[in-house]
Amino acid sequence: MAIRIGIYGYGNLGRGVECALRQNADMELVAVFTRRAPETVKILTPGVQVLHVDAALEMQDRIDVMILCGGSATDLPVQTPALAKLFHVVDSFDTHAKIPEHFEAVDAAAKASGKVGIISVGWDPGMFSLNRLYAGAALPDGNDYTFWGKGVSQGHSDAIRRIEGVLDAKQYTIPVDAALEAVRSGANPALSTREKHLRECFVVAEEGADKARIENEIKTMPNYFADYDTTVHFISKEELMRDHSGIPHGGFVIRTGKTGANLEHNHVIEYSLKLDSNPEFTASVIVAYARAAYRLGTEGASGCKTVFDIAPAYLSPKSGAELRKALL
Amino acid sequence: MAIRIGIYGYGNLGRGVECALRQNADMELVAVFTRRAPETVKILTPGVQVLHVDAALEMQDRIDVMILCGGSATDLPVQTPALAKLFHVVDSFDTHAKIPEHFEAVDAAAKASGKVGIISVGWDPGMFSLNRLYAGAALPDGNDYTFWGKGVSQGHSDAIRRIEGVLDAKQYTIPVDAALEAVRSGANPALSTREKHLRECFVVAEEGADKARIENEIKTMPNYFADYDTTVHFISKEELMRDHSGIPHGGFVIRTGKTGANLEHNHVIEYSLKLDSNPEFTASVIVAYARAAYRLGTEGASGCKTVFDIAPAYLSPKSGAELRKALL
Repeated sequence: MAIRIGIYGYGNLGRGVECALRQNADMELVAVFTRRAPETVKILTPGVQVLHVDAALEMQDRIDVMILCGGSATDLPVQTPALAKLFHVVDSFDTHAKIPEHFEAVDAAAKASGKVGIISVGWDPGMFSLNRLYAGAALPDGNDYTFWGKGVSQGHSDAIRRIEGVLDAKQYTIPVDAALEAVRSGANPALSTREKHLRECFVVAEEGADKARIENEIKTMPNYFADYDTTVHFISKEELMRDHSGIPHGGFVIRTGKTGANLEHNHVIEYSLKLDSNPEFTASVIVAYARAAYRLGTEGASGCKTVFDIAPAYLSPKSGAELRKALL
Repeated sequence: MAIRIGIYGYGNLGRGVECALRQNADMELVAVFTRRAPETVKILTPGVQVLHVDAALEMQDRIDVMILCGGSATDLPVQTPALAKLFHVVDSFDTHAKIPEHFEAVDAAAKASGKVGIISVGWDPGMFSLNRLYAGAALPDGNDYTFWGKGVSQGHSDAIRRIEGVLDAKQYTIPVDAALEAVRSGANPALSTREKHLRECFVVAEEGADKARIENEIKTMPNYFADYDTTVHFISKEELMRDHSGIPHGGFVIRTGKTGANLEHNHVIEYSLKLDSNPEFTASVIVAYARAAYRLGTEGASGCKTVFDIAPAYLSPKSGAELRKALL
């Protein structure tokens, strides 16, 4: 029998989960839950119900794993613990500083209900975190570096859109090649914020807007841009649609470290992602962890877990013997 | 109390384990076991016993995890099951085709003794295997590629040394840049053996040896060289010592795959290693898994496991809360 999945929240991530489920034959989408009026939400999968979020309670016997696709700021801190009382849950909570308290809240709820909750799944946190852990365990005397991009930062794009005279904008975070090369050389460079990433902005301004002022407001914006080398391009709405409508992202996790009787040998471990669609890749990782949540649940596990706590074999539909034969 | 470790076999890998243990404060080397006369074996760590392999039985109460550092051809198939009757064990068994039967043998022994045996630990099998699994779980519609090098192949170097007139030799396996680029492009190329790797040989010939014949014998050697573009350089013994005495290695695991409603988005996941010392890095990974073996053992686990079966958190000396805070 297929693992029965619910999608809770139907934005970019929810749509990505819906697509990913179609690539995993052992999973079945049962329902999509939305805060909007369900009849206004059109989904891709024929024959699957769209329900109001309030109907989740009634679906407890028909869904094994609920995948939470809301935002980390206000949705997930409330939703993940609440839904862990009813289902195994997986979320992509990505406010790094608040992970410990989110973990505790989900752990308490999931332990009480006997369910499994897996939080902070995706690529960062997620696959990048795993690579930091594995690389650090293999090379205890070393240094970690994480670079993001080239990719679209939603937060930075939004910040530009709030500037007066801006109609629309897209911001790309770009790792600095020279910094990547310095890290790969094993030189253990101390890199400033400015040395690690560039920011490139494509801005659609209102007719007659003061572009010099807009550019200056962007480049001097505290936290978002002031600490970076930022370039601003003014383009037409048509150009933005044509050339910048995707949501690509990616990045690099690099650890360099030393071994040997006198630490005379250098090693470089590098993991990188180049993603055409940030939400679809995040969704694909989440779906693999939904499989793990279900399996752990059938083994009697409960409580909150992260990618660190889950043996890799749980992610694959293949058996242990198949994995050893094909992939080891 | 530190985890008490024994090293069984003291070649390059055993020395690498000895060095790695010094980088992990929660581990303590108790003894090195050798088939040679123990008094002829000098180790790096002051105050640590060198014992004959026959003395392992008497050390059962003083060692938690025995790390096996023998070869996959004849040593490990016998040693790992035998020692799993006495200790938690970790090995680097790397004969891919025989992993299933090795797993069964170690599993039976370790289940009978209540010990944990972790086999096939290192980078391939090991970290590369993990990356194949994780990437395949995230991108089910995709293709895997593994490239090795640039690095020294011991087996190929040995094969050259067996040719008449050859005094010494080192062989480097080198991935072909064009093949790597084709894979990264997402083109899913079908690559022949020749298209994936080059072989470069540095040979010290006997005085007066027929170099043309040696070069021809290398380049036409079935299995080892005939299917590759091979270059042969004749150098002096001094040059070989000066420029080719290291044991570097590394490689790339790349998965490209598609997501989206119409599989319209491409993704590239790439993991790479650049290692100054193949045995020391392998040893460093093994030591992290020795920690996992011990911890799993204290939790009551037994039987044979691979890297696929072990949650990443077991590899790190940090607590779950520390890991979530620092690395997630």
